[in-house]
Amino acid sequence: MSGPTGEQDAIRVAVSTVIFSLRGAPEGDRLMLPLVRRTREPHLGAWALPGGWLDPAENLDAAASRTLAETTALKPSYLEQLYTFGDVDRAPTRAISIVYWALLRSDLVDAQRSARDAPENVEWFDVDEIPPLAFDHNLIAEYALDRLRNKVAYSRIAAGLLPDEFTLTELREVYEAVLGRRLDPSNFRRLLEGSDELVPTESFRTGNHRPARLYRYIAD
Amino acid sequence: MSGPTGEQDAIRVAVSTVIFSLRGAPEGDRLMLPLVRRTREPHLGAWALPGGWLDPAENLDAAASRTLAETTALKPSYLEQLYTFGDVDRAPTRAISIVYWALLRSDLVDAQRSARDAPENVEWFDVDEIPPLAFDHNLIAEYALDRLRNKVAYSRIAAGLLPDEFTLTELREVYEAVLGRRLDPSNFRRLLEGSDELVPTESFRTGNHRPARLYRYIAD
Repeated sequence: MSGPTGEQDAIRVAVSTVIFSLRGAPEGDRLMLPLVRRTREPHLGAWALPGGWLDPAENLDAAASRTLAETTALKPSYLEQLYTFGDVDRAPTRAISIVYWALLRSDLVDAQRSARDAPENVEWFDVDEIPPLAFDHNLIAEYALDRLRNKVAYSRIAAGLLPDEFTLTELREVYEAVLGRRLDPSNFRRLLEGSDELVPTESFRTGNHRPARLYRYIAD
Repeated sequence: MSGPTGEQDAIRVAVSTVIFSLRGAPEGDRLMLPLVRRTREPHLGAWALPGGWLDPAENLDAAASRTLAETTALKPSYLEQLYTFGDVDRAPTRAISIVYWALLRSDLVDAQRSARDAPENVEWFDVDEIPPLAFDHNLIAEYALDRLRNKVAYSRIAAGLLPDEFTLTELREVYEAVLGRRLDPSNFRRLLEGSDELVPTESFRTGNHRPARLYRYIAD
């Protein structure tokens, strides 16, 4: 690391973020992600992942948060580096993209969306209905979805999509939205109630149905 | 991605690789990694991970293989992107490093090492005795070791350190070297024999001990 070749100037560094949230639909919550319509070439007018160029004076995580806020006005509940995509032919000129994946709690997404500074060229898409994207962004979105689905199976990551307290039904619906399939309610309840990390609170969710106990994850 | 700011020229992109192998020691095989003594500033004379600058015309995996070969003359049995390290203060001038981690089969390491083009400023270190390294390379080495230890628990990654066929004792010794602790031979045998992916061959390892059956992993 003593000095670059002259050619290194030709490599540019971008940061992009795939951020997931649950959004209401008539048939139940769906796993969705926001896309940004490009306002310049290349791929003018195409949908793309939120992102932007890395600033030489900022750390990578900070760049992910900043570019996400600038393009979508969203602040993630959870943010983690995913992978760096850097194939020579992924863009017209050489650009590597350090990609983050993020979660946004369902109770925060609407509040953030209705903020007056929410950009107009942003739309949410169902993960099963992602349109053709600019650059290699379809590949990146698939990769992030795989990571989320894999991680939900062995960690408490689903809680990143929920408020601090939730019913077991709500938690199961997150798993179902992430995994894209129905889970047996009794088996799910049995599995989760056996977890050391999930603890019942003294509160109940009331409404049209019989009261359901609220749970929370113990602090990290 | 329409164009960089002028300042982007100030960001340089390196690729580094943490490559592990098992090497014989009087008390049994140890998990080790090669380090390269730096021949220029900054950190002149300090040990560092193998690596170099990304060439604008090559993909990231190719850059990892090339810089590893150029600095150590080693060709990995397994190579996977780990993480991109990019803190502003990790080097005197802004440089991000896309880090790979790799495995080298124990039966190949000595053959590769004795090649006449093996560089002289390379030495192997026990993962428990890594010296102070240049830049943030100690942090990177620890991160790679964590990934390896984590992955060995739920995947067949240990086989990346062994020839195609191996005894259950040899496989247990890989786990022990990676995890840095002894495992109960009976429990280990029971666990592994229950695996669908590990299959017995018709061959046996003979020598000073009673013959031991050789196993292999089924093809991916």
